[in-house]
Amino acid sequence: MAKNIASISGFPEWLPAERLVELQVLDTLRETFELHGFSSLETRAVEPVSQLLRKGETSKEIYLLSRLQDSNLDIDRQMSKGKRLGLHFDLTVPFARFVNENAGHLVFPFKRYQIQKVWRGERPQDGRFREFIQADIDVVGQGELAFHHEVELALVMGEALSKLGLPAVTIRVNNRKIVQGICEGAGIEQVEDALRCLDKLDKIGADQVREELESVGIRAEQADVLLKMAQISGSKSESIVSAVTALGYQSELLDEGLAELRAMLEEGERRAPGLLVADLKIARGLDYYTGTVYESFIEGHEDLGSICSGGRYDNLIGDGKKKYPGVGLSIGVSRVLSRIMAANLLVPSRPVPTVVYVAVNDEEHRGESNAIAAALRARGISTDVADKAAKFGKQIKAADRRGIPFVWFPGDVDEVKDIRSGEQVVADCHTWEPPQQDLKVQVLAPPLDVEG
Amino acid sequence: MAKNIASISGFPEWLPAERLVELQVLDTLRETFELHGFSSLETRAVEPVSQLLRKGETSKEIYLLSRLQDSNLDIDRQMSKGKRLGLHFDLTVPFARFVNENAGHLVFPFKRYQIQKVWRGERPQDGRFREFIQADIDVVGQGELAFHHEVELALVMGEALSKLGLPAVTIRVNNRKIVQGICEGAGIEQVEDALRCLDKLDKIGADQVREELESVGIRAEQADVLLKMAQISGSKSESIVSAVTALGYQSELLDEGLAELRAMLEEGERRAPGLLVADLKIARGLDYYTGTVYESFIEGHEDLGSICSGGRYDNLIGDGKKKYPGVGLSIGVSRVLSRIMAANLLVPSRPVPTVVYVAVNDEEHRGESNAIAAALRARGISTDVADKAAKFGKQIKAADRRGIPFVWFPGDVDEVKDIRSGEQVVADCHTWEPPQQDLKVQVLAPPLDVEG
Repeated sequence: MAKNIASISGFPEWLPAERLVELQVLDTLRETFELHGFSSLETRAVEPVSQLLRKGETSKEIYLLSRLQDSNLDIDRQMSKGKRLGLHFDLTVPFARFVNENAGHLVFPFKRYQIQKVWRGERPQDGRFREFIQADIDVVGQGELAFHHEVELALVMGEALSKLGLPAVTIRVNNRKIVQGICEGAGIEQVEDALRCLDKLDKIGADQVREELESVGIRAEQADVLLKMAQISGSKSESIVSAVTALGYQSELLDEGLAELRAMLEEGERRAPGLLVADLKIARGLDYYTGTVYESFIEGHEDLGSICSGGRYDNLIGDGKKKYPGVGLSIGVSRVLSRIMAANLLVPSRPVPTVVYVAVNDEEHRGESNAIAAALRARGISTDVADKAAKFGKQIKAADRRGIPFVWFPGDVDEVKDIRSGEQVVADCHTWEPPQQDLKVQVLAPPLDVEG
Repeated sequence: MAKNIASISGFPEWLPAERLVELQVLDTLRETFELHGFSSLETRAVEPVSQLLRKGETSKEIYLLSRLQDSNLDIDRQMSKGKRLGLHFDLTVPFARFVNENAGHLVFPFKRYQIQKVWRGERPQDGRFREFIQADIDVVGQGELAFHHEVELALVMGEALSKLGLPAVTIRVNNRKIVQGICEGAGIEQVEDALRCLDKLDKIGADQVREELESVGIRAEQADVLLKMAQISGSKSESIVSAVTALGYQSELLDEGLAELRAMLEEGERRAPGLLVADLKIARGLDYYTGTVYESFIEGHEDLGSICSGGRYDNLIGDGKKKYPGVGLSIGVSRVLSRIMAANLLVPSRPVPTVVYVAVNDEEHRGESNAIAAALRARGISTDVADKAAKFGKQIKAADRRGIPFVWFPGDVDEVKDIRSGEQVVADCHTWEPPQQDLKVQVLAPPLDVEG
């Protein structure tokens, strides 16, 4: 299968066969989210720059808009008022804005999914694009949000990802309350700095993290505690709890975090064994998380990085008076797709939606072929009619070149040929059915190569 | 139903219930296009400004992109090289670029559909947005493209629009070869100017069109001919042909155009009676059309303007050496949707995807409710679990506020209540099925008001 064919770096496009894989992935996500009662939402692609710049750290990645006929003065004026528009770089910021604006029209807890393109002006790399699709689910409460939604979100995403037909996905979870509790216990005040440093553990290793921790004023024995904590991981709640307890700190916050992490693991083990693993080095870059944080990895493709991340946020949405605590998880769909295509993890059973190609005997009888096509389509069978009344051999070749499995020959008695097997049978367009596996394009993992 | 809730003028957003209507419309279009063998394509949202400015007339409507950290010098440099990026304002320009770039990977005639957002910086008005969805189908040949595809496209769009459940849609067709043939015959050299003036006929009336025609150097008796031609309309091919013939001109081009228009009407009458009407004032603003041109109107909503337009283009796509003649039609989905919502033309049977709300007896037994939900979902029934183990009355109210029709009560023997009728029955989560019309949200025209 051809790779993505971006003619502008960072803006991937797919050929029709690969687009079928993308559609199947998006459909599966949507179906799973709807099965769990999540409502679809789509927000505009743009936000005022003032909204986008609320989180300073991503400011560099924003694409700003201007109209061709705007003067520099117009643009400066919009900019200074924070009214200039930019393309959204994630779906969380627009969702937070949407909830604030429309809370009166929503029923809480509000569960929504959102599958849209986002844009970031960063340097394109393998699996990192400037335009890409994210698929988010969030649950947001009004004033409060029960912890069980933090478990629910991981399980919904686990189910959605498992239905894609990819190698197994593991969701690694941590809880900010634990990190914060340990920091409090160890007298570390630079919690955000600590998180930022720990986030790099896999990339730069313990020694360099220790250096960075010390460079922000965290003492050597404090760094020891953090690095010890960051080594704790596993799926057995008992051993996680005892390993954390063994660090020797205690506080209400730490207890709460540990109880939540334990509940998360135990509920995960009951409902989706093997999906959840505690990993206390999971930090997440964003500072608005207040409870569970998640990162997810595809078995054998850990080099891709986390393909589905998020967390609990208590203070992100709100207008000062009201608070809307939430929890969200976001799949980097384009990143997953780029690997699916490059490594042939999923392939479509054919490159077009079409099942049947109706031959045309001669141009005067094109109407008969059109009528047959209409009858097949009326029963949900995707059908195309030959472009030209060429010799039948040529028409069969035209179907074959497109990857359409069946050619229909109109006559006194119609016949249909499976051009893969060569089998040709008498058929009636009002009753004939293709084999079930041919009706719709199937997107599946390719058969394993047989070793010679 | 609430109207669109744009907090930035021209960038519409929908609440979850309305989003269900939008999804249904988009799904129906997609299904119909795929039934007819059109492949899905999605192009990036951006194109180089040089590509976007190929058609000068729309230049003012383009949104240009810049990155927050770009210097003015960077921007000027990109601009002068034509490499600056802008958001696409339609799906035809990106499709033409895609075909040119990837012709080697495509099989011709290539049939694709494309449903995406586009952006225009124009002043927002009723039904005109700055961000909106278009749904396009095109067929493109290599070197040549048979006329029957011009008929096919109208019929596919007619079928797609009829399946939406809206009032009847009429597609009004004309043929550029007729207009051009008449202009040749009458010695009018300003064909493009003539088209531009005729395009305004409905808006400004015959007298003003005559003035405008004369202002571009078209003589009074020539203007008479054009205005006489523009009055010809109807669905009977015989009378159209004789009315055009009565204008008193003849040429190969005119004959060809008339033969095509006649074939279009006759084939339309056979396959979709009432769908196609010839209307010789249909001009279309774009100068790249070379054969059939289309505009479409919803009965009783003609004030919306054309909701689906397009035409045959022979010279739009190509790299100098190769030519890719095509024909395309584009639905202004957001414009149609804004009317659907405002006039309540379609409403969803409920505001959420969810069929069943499983009650929770107490927090200790949430697991049982989760297990019931999992069993229902495994059989495709969208299910949510109560947020809180409140009194049953409160849990029923929570389902009702969401518009979820069934509440499930776990027990030694489970029961399920249809909260619309109040009927409650014993049920097993491994076998119970909701009524077919409740399984998925249905989006339908609301029942007519009964006159008192």
